[in-house]
Amino acid sequence: MNFYNNEPGILIAVDCIIFGFNGESLEILLIKRGIEPERNKWSLMGGFVQSDESPEGAASRVLNKLTGLENVYMEDCGIFGDPGRESHRRVISITYFALIDTLQYQHIISDEYEAKWFPLDEHPTLIFDHEEMITAAKRKLRSKAALYPILFELLPEKFTIPQIASLYECVYNIELDKRNFSRKLLSSGLIIKLKEKDKENSKKGAFFYRLNTEIYKEKIMSFLRYLPSWSMEG
Amino acid sequence: MNFYNNEPGILIAVDCIIFGFNGESLEILLIKRGIEPERNKWSLMGGFVQSDESPEGAASRVLNKLTGLENVYMEDCGIFGDPGRESHRRVISITYFALIDTLQYQHIISDEYEAKWFPLDEHPTLIFDHEEMITAAKRKLRSKAALYPILFELLPEKFTIPQIASLYECVYNIELDKRNFSRKLLSSGLIIKLKEKDKENSKKGAFFYRLNTEIYKEKIMSFLRYLPSWSMEG
Repeated sequence: MNFYNNEPGILIAVDCIIFGFNGESLEILLIKRGIEPERNKWSLMGGFVQSDESPEGAASRVLNKLTGLENVYMEDCGIFGDPGRESHRRVISITYFALIDTLQYQHIISDEYEAKWFPLDEHPTLIFDHEEMITAAKRKLRSKAALYPILFELLPEKFTIPQIASLYECVYNIELDKRNFSRKLLSSGLIIKLKEKDKENSKKGAFFYRLNTEIYKEKIMSFLRYLPSWSMEG
Repeated sequence: MNFYNNEPGILIAVDCIIFGFNGESLEILLIKRGIEPERNKWSLMGGFVQSDESPEGAASRVLNKLTGLENVYMEDCGIFGDPGRESHRRVISITYFALIDTLQYQHIISDEYEAKWFPLDEHPTLIFDHEEMITAAKRKLRSKAALYPILFELLPEKFTIPQIASLYECVYNIELDKRNFSRKLLSSGLIIKLKEKDKENSKKGAFFYRLNTEIYKEKIMSFLRYLPSWSMEG
């Protein structure tokens, strides 16, 4: 039996689920597809893996083409390869989620694509199985963020504690005990208080913090304790 | 720009990292490769994705061919697609880890391949990047098992508490406080005490338990609390 029988004719693509946080809610970046099939419909941004690049390389290239951003936090979050997922050809798609601070992105938006941020829970119908891709990416984001403090990637360099609390609330769809959350976060050493205050969002103002990147790398597990276990379900 | 430029000539394979637990230690199932390139060298079991199957389908087929087992717990655990990972052709491999109880496997071993269990930390040199695949699978197994009680898949239907404790110790390379572990496990409702005792491994004997599958499905998150967060590092 020739077990390692070659099977050509399968194309390999990547699709990017680009999550953004605008300080208040989670959003997703979608494009209006410029080519057939499904031209002019909303879609995730994707592309085929080229012969000289790895799938991760392809995902970075795609993201960079759309946003101009480099060194963005990305991670693979699922393989979509059912034989019938596209009707006229066989494409296996590897998905990657990216986390970006939407404010940072505004300045370098590309004109080449019709790209738009949508609220994560209120976006237009998407082509193929892209909706399932988003669902899988959300699930991965939740489990990953329970083990590692990756959500800091969605925040600007300077952030307030109310901001990070509201980010966690968005991702897990929960209401946090703010005092408790703040206490645990501060005692983790993960964030460093700055002298400046954010006075835009409250009269009293909230101190800005920045990430302690050394602790971030060392104690990547410490966030485990912040989230109630039931918040990860569903 | 034709962004969706097709790029043929890339082959898609799956490779299976088959973890087994023999009651005492973790093992991995390897095969001696029967075909070129790298004939007669030790390797993970793999195969190409066929045109009528999904990558998960290919992984199940490969596992079934090797072990005869069906409905085995499998999960994708990484994409290996560097252009130079094989010298004469371009293959992107999607890896899946499988968890099986080695005792269950003994009865249905296939003669078609030279397959052998090796201790996880003491196996022969492997071809290509298969060593990295195992490392990535171990990491995924650890984070997944911290969130979900998937390690029960590695146990026989009837198991003792010392058995499950030693499984957790193997996976995380830690020494558990057995009394504490046992207390938390029992209070979770995840396991049901049987009347029978295992008298092979101690004079006093240890009661057998079975998994409460309803609670298993409901409370898949409850294992979060059993493991110290530092045990996940490295």
